[in-house]
Amino acid sequence: MNNRRTLLTELGVFETFTPTLPDSHRNSPFVLLANIAPSLQHHVLNQMQRPKFVVADTMDLWLNIALPDLLKLLKRLDAFVLNDSEAYQLTTEDNVFAALKKIHKLGPKYVIIKKGSHGSILSGPGGFFICPAYPLHRVVDPTGAGDSFVGGMMGHLATAKGPINEKIRRAMIYGSVVASFCCEGFGLQRTTKITRAQIEQRVKELARLTRFL
Amino acid sequence: MNNRRTLLTELGVFETFTPTLPDSHRNSPFVLLANIAPSLQHHVLNQMQRPKFVVADTMDLWLNIALPDLLKLLKRLDAFVLNDSEAYQLTTEDNVFAALKKIHKLGPKYVIIKKGSHGSILSGPGGFFICPAYPLHRVVDPTGAGDSFVGGMMGHLATAKGPINEKIRRAMIYGSVVASFCCEGFGLQRTTKITRAQIEQRVKELARLTRFL
Repeated sequence: MNNRRTLLTELGVFETFTPTLPDSHRNSPFVLLANIAPSLQHHVLNQMQRPKFVVADTMDLWLNIALPDLLKLLKRLDAFVLNDSEAYQLTTEDNVFAALKKIHKLGPKYVIIKKGSHGSILSGPGGFFICPAYPLHRVVDPTGAGDSFVGGMMGHLATAKGPINEKIRRAMIYGSVVASFCCEGFGLQRTTKITRAQIEQRVKELARLTRFL
Repeated sequence: MNNRRTLLTELGVFETFTPTLPDSHRNSPFVLLANIAPSLQHHVLNQMQRPKFVVADTMDLWLNIALPDLLKLLKRLDAFVLNDSEAYQLTTEDNVFAALKKIHKLGPKYVIIKKGSHGSILSGPGGFFICPAYPLHRVVDPTGAGDSFVGGMMGHLATAKGPINEKIRRAMIYGSVVASFCCEGFGLQRTTKITRAQIEQRVKELARLTRFL
């Protein structure tokens, strides 16, 4: 469950997709460039007016076929999110600190490496953060868990008050919680039925599950 | 680094080892039956006078060749420590909660599943605890990390005041820290040079690395 092996990527409608953002979206301070061709991530970012915090995700396919575009994108990001096998592919470092260091040198001030059910690790201006996954009694389908994680994280960053650096750890916890709901159903089955109270309850539970002082 | 595959186990001097404990050791309240043949773990435990807290570790070899002895031992334990692949081998459950539940039914009130550099998880009377591993910049040799973990944990349980249930989380953190030192050298190279201050410093660092409230 902890890694994805790409057998085939069917881009489908995304193959010729060239999104034009409506004016109302162009001045959003928070931009999440979810996993898609880096050239399209550039295309979207080009339409944004002075965003405050830009995050991108990626996948092995783009490391294989669009690395120059991706490397250019990294210089335009505040945060880069990728999974551990992609971090290894990008840096050839199997030690997480060595990999994080190399990725920082490519541009982003915040780097988050995802490790599936083992959680994730952040490296940023405030140091490192070991973020737990929310442990599940039953996993139905982990598809979309990474997207849910970064989506939940951005939701908290965009709504909570205070500097990014002070709220990003808690934002990642929200990400873990949203990802946990994603895994409890196929597609958006479970995700679309989450209540705010259920999210807050799992955030509290993660605090209880990890405290030791 | 996160799992051990046993190619060959040379028991060597342990093959005919039948330890007789000195009287001074027989009334220790804390007993750690480290990984060895379950029949020898029974033999040691038989010599103890009313221990307060008995913990055992094991390995895949004993699950393969001495399962009945091991199952009898489980009924005599307070806590059982094993790694995730062994938990799977014992229970055929790949969900950690399902595996923990089955192992509790075999006897121990506390069950700890170790996951290498991904940390460990406790299930006990006080609920679950997600225990982080101490992240290392350089791993020299993970041999003995599991023994160091449970040894560090027992050291804290045996010296700190208060009920087991209230101190076991912190004890596991000490275990993670001692295991981290073990991985920084071959054999006992690094372990024998740890100072108390270095241990306390890493415990504090783990608190900083995991806090999000």
